[in-house]
Amino acid sequence: MSKKYVDLETLKYILYDIHKLEDLLTRERFQDHDMESLNLFIDSVKEFSDRELYPYFQEMDATPAYHKDGTVIVHEQVYKVMLQSGELGIIAAAFDYEDGGLQIPFSALQAAVYIMDAANNHLPGYPSLTQGAAELITEFGSQVLKDTYVSKMLSGVWGGTMCLTEPQAGSSLSDIVTRATPTANDFYKITGQKIFISGGDNQFSENIIHLVLARIEGAPKGTKGISLFVVPKNRPKEDGSLEYNDVMTVADFQKMGQRGYCTTHLGFGDKDDCRGWLVGEEHKGLAQMFLMMNGARIAVGRGAAAIAMAAYRTSLQYANERPQGRKLSADGKKNPSEKQSLIIEHPDVRRMLLLQKAIVEGSLSLVMLASKYQDIVATATSKEEKEKYHLLLEMIIPIVKTYPSEAGAESVDNGLQVLGGYGFCTDFTLQQYYRDIRISALYEGTTGIQSQDLLGRKVTMHNGKGLELLATEIMQTIMVASKDDELKGYAAILGDKLKLSQKVIGKLMPFAMKGNYERYLSDANLFMEYMSIVVLGWLWLEMAVDAKKEVGNADRKYSETFYESKIHTMKFYFKYEVPKTNSLAESLMSDEVVTIKNDKEYII
Amino acid sequence: MSKKYVDLETLKYILYDIHKLEDLLTRERFQDHDMESLNLFIDSVKEFSDRELYPYFQEMDATPAYHKDGTVIVHEQVYKVMLQSGELGIIAAAFDYEDGGLQIPFSALQAAVYIMDAANNHLPGYPSLTQGAAELITEFGSQVLKDTYVSKMLSGVWGGTMCLTEPQAGSSLSDIVTRATPTANDFYKITGQKIFISGGDNQFSENIIHLVLARIEGAPKGTKGISLFVVPKNRPKEDGSLEYNDVMTVADFQKMGQRGYCTTHLGFGDKDDCRGWLVGEEHKGLAQMFLMMNGARIAVGRGAAAIAMAAYRTSLQYANERPQGRKLSADGKKNPSEKQSLIIEHPDVRRMLLLQKAIVEGSLSLVMLASKYQDIVATATSKEEKEKYHLLLEMIIPIVKTYPSEAGAESVDNGLQVLGGYGFCTDFTLQQYYRDIRISALYEGTTGIQSQDLLGRKVTMHNGKGLELLATEIMQTIMVASKDDELKGYAAILGDKLKLSQKVIGKLMPFAMKGNYERYLSDANLFMEYMSIVVLGWLWLEMAVDAKKEVGNADRKYSETFYESKIHTMKFYFKYEVPKTNSLAESLMSDEVVTIKNDKEYII
Repeated sequence: MSKKYVDLETLKYILYDIHKLEDLLTRERFQDHDMESLNLFIDSVKEFSDRELYPYFQEMDATPAYHKDGTVIVHEQVYKVMLQSGELGIIAAAFDYEDGGLQIPFSALQAAVYIMDAANNHLPGYPSLTQGAAELITEFGSQVLKDTYVSKMLSGVWGGTMCLTEPQAGSSLSDIVTRATPTANDFYKITGQKIFISGGDNQFSENIIHLVLARIEGAPKGTKGISLFVVPKNRPKEDGSLEYNDVMTVADFQKMGQRGYCTTHLGFGDKDDCRGWLVGEEHKGLAQMFLMMNGARIAVGRGAAAIAMAAYRTSLQYANERPQGRKLSADGKKNPSEKQSLIIEHPDVRRMLLLQKAIVEGSLSLVMLASKYQDIVATATSKEEKEKYHLLLEMIIPIVKTYPSEAGAESVDNGLQVLGGYGFCTDFTLQQYYRDIRISALYEGTTGIQSQDLLGRKVTMHNGKGLELLATEIMQTIMVASKDDELKGYAAILGDKLKLSQKVIGKLMPFAMKGNYERYLSDANLFMEYMSIVVLGWLWLEMAVDAKKEVGNADRKYSETFYESKIHTMKFYFKYEVPKTNSLAESLMSDEVVTIKNDKEYII
Repeated sequence: MSKKYVDLETLKYILYDIHKLEDLLTRERFQDHDMESLNLFIDSVKEFSDRELYPYFQEMDATPAYHKDGTVIVHEQVYKVMLQSGELGIIAAAFDYEDGGLQIPFSALQAAVYIMDAANNHLPGYPSLTQGAAELITEFGSQVLKDTYVSKMLSGVWGGTMCLTEPQAGSSLSDIVTRATPTANDFYKITGQKIFISGGDNQFSENIIHLVLARIEGAPKGTKGISLFVVPKNRPKEDGSLEYNDVMTVADFQKMGQRGYCTTHLGFGDKDDCRGWLVGEEHKGLAQMFLMMNGARIAVGRGAAAIAMAAYRTSLQYANERPQGRKLSADGKKNPSEKQSLIIEHPDVRRMLLLQKAIVEGSLSLVMLASKYQDIVATATSKEEKEKYHLLLEMIIPIVKTYPSEAGAESVDNGLQVLGGYGFCTDFTLQQYYRDIRISALYEGTTGIQSQDLLGRKVTMHNGKGLELLATEIMQTIMVASKDDELKGYAAILGDKLKLSQKVIGKLMPFAMKGNYERYLSDANLFMEYMSIVVLGWLWLEMAVDAKKEVGNADRKYSETFYESKIHTMKFYFKYEVPKTNSLAESLMSDEVVTIKNDKEYII
């Protein structure tokens, strides 16, 4: 089943050849690793995914997680995958040695978990969130907290979650009301409700460690009064035994997709006996959580990119096997005596497949780019390097969260369409990918939130320095591509689109300057779409530059067709996707204001 | 629950005021009807939908139709709605008096069934398909066939289906192999398999009448050798009793959405005892079926438009009730001490709502336009009138099938997003609309098939006469709008887009002339998108022209806000949707060819 759900060759090509994982290995943190060992790690996760994830993909959809007797009943594979993710070192991979980790580059880990996402997106969230929760403890927690929780979490024996959302607040974290009351001991009393908690409970794990945002009594209003707490489902006593910590599983949300990945409603301190331990400083909770949030947002993009990959592989296989219809002959008719064509021979089906390939592989490159930036920031050897890549990462974060989620859903939609009526039937997995991927544009900050982050915070941070750095990176690829006769036309187009983006910002910025932020941000979603296309155009041009260099090379790593397919897909992207920037720019620069509320309500 | 799932005011506005139903009533066929009686008919269907359809919408999704003991078990509401649709005259509404019908205009019937679709899209297909099957019999069948079947079908006691698709042929009808063997009697022996048969069986109906495409032995290959047969599940004997006709229900396809509307696999003549009666002439089956197909395609567009309407109403209600976040103040910050805003106050939410409103009400106008054309063709008093409106109808058919299906799905997608995480949860209906509407782009000819029909057949028919007539209609609205100071700018834009469409066709046509049909049609889907935006832009401009006329009118029918909201939504459509034509035109006119297969396969 080598390419059934993931194209491992393309994954390694993008990680090794395009984003040059090997260059990272010179850094001190990664000195014990070489390409062979990392390649082995990735292959072992592929083997693990073939064996323990992919076979349960449809089954976990058919038997969703549900609430029963105060817990959540999940598929037994959840626990198996948690424990084996611990054993294989997947949860601990990127942690420091001193915290029990393996100091594997974040990028290599993302590539590995991408395979798991593609195999069965209902499962990797459990170990991933556990990893994220453990990371918060190691990064900001006291030694006692580290000693108490981290090793059990990295081994997959205990699960972990992030508890942000509350029923009355939704995306507006400044409105959270979960309360932390100081006590005479080292803990606080926690009371409140949290909803949409992924991996919030299950019948197997002996413990789940919740990282909870709450407000210490008397804290300032808004996001500046939020603190972070470790709140275990069961609190470890001194003798090592566990005692129930008054964390109640109130319900499990039933969802349209990703039904095997539970989404719980938790109640803390119903009996006034829920203890929480402060992580880091008081009132700094949101900032700490947000440091980890970059990883979580890359993870959502990664998951969406992987689902779209699996859907593409499935629809491609179908298109290569299903005969239907015939080519038109020169008189515009079809000859019914001729053999039927395979549907992959029809231009419209090819368009749908190439659109998927462009989105899927482009998204993968975007995820690996963000991961590389994350690695460089974490291991930077100078202040300049750290600042540069930090700003580049901040620019890319909202895009890596959003593009694979939005375009990925469109990609799966096209994959479903390739199968015709069968795409809508539950015997085929396309409809499941279609349902599963839809959550990506919602969780960890909706597309609207990400778009406001991009235009409202990232474009303006450090007086536009991040945007400038990103433009410089793009220009470098444009300059290289300009020297190639076949590529220079595409390079010129991308240069124009980059310039046009500056014109768009030039049109919008005065609104911000004049304090009209509502107007400045009103079309942030369109700006997100615009910038995503520019970034993806860049990544495809970068891939084409490399492919051009290798395709005629006698000792090239992959087949001639492999490299040619990358160049071909770049051309597709520039023909069908890049032109969309024109209409987006037209809408963005229009003086017609129709989405800002005035005295009358026309939306009826 | 007046606007819970449908905005009846807008429906009537579009049917009565925009498309001027009253003008049709002067025609002889409709002379017994007046606006009051038709209004009453529509209101009675609304009341019926409130009572018998809407309350079962979620329940029918939760308990899908399934195959058991050789039949399909459907929700009991299926049978109730069938019988009451018979009693209320919904099935018979548009039939001739002599066939037991009421001669109600097709447009008025579509408006009524639209309400049913919006209330619960799992149900109206059963009576609608029965009506379509009965129509084929009355139109082409012998008197004996009419006498035997039609009245039982129009009363909803017997169901009806259309059986086209076969497992090996899919959309390629020239490859169907179901066989009809002549006998010494008045019937043929039928053998074969049909799949994706909507409403193919249920445990309640005493009979289901299948209209089956099959090939008489020795018939020519391809679509010219296909004939049409009536094949009842149970054949009526002379004494009126029924005898099993060897039509086997093999399976029921389980689907992602529209789960209460069964989709069956039927086997004919497994025991060599399946009788079919020829309808109309030998080998003319496909042409006859396609005469009825226009109605079926309008019905798909109508259903999709209605689902999008229901989703819009639901998300609008949520946006008006859910507080979350705050407006940005002049320093770009939010003040957490302020009361939370309702989400309808955020520009991005307003954009998603207005996009829905533009697609939903625009689609409704498109469905009513096609229905009006259908009425005019059916009652034309001159050859010229008949030909003109026949060509206009033919032009609009692929668009009315496709635009509400594709843009409608996008509309529902935005509705789901308005609800944030709740949109993905099964407690809310948005996710169900999201799943349900997705079938619309697949059945009765996929979007790919419709697009090839539009560019390949409709644009070129009668030397482009249909396109010319459509352009003339659009120009008339442009001319009227040009006289209004507020509207003339939009009119000019639409005129430009119309011109640009001619340029696009001018670029493509030479490929067809040179016999390169594959290249001519390779981007037919983009052309469909282009023309859909032009047609919708026209319909919105038309609505704005009327609203401008009425808004200051003291004795106007609806509120000032009602009319203003139409003008506002037109402006939204021109700001956000119309510009997309530019990028579509750019892709369509590009000389880069990447979707036509050559010697090498790059899609890997």
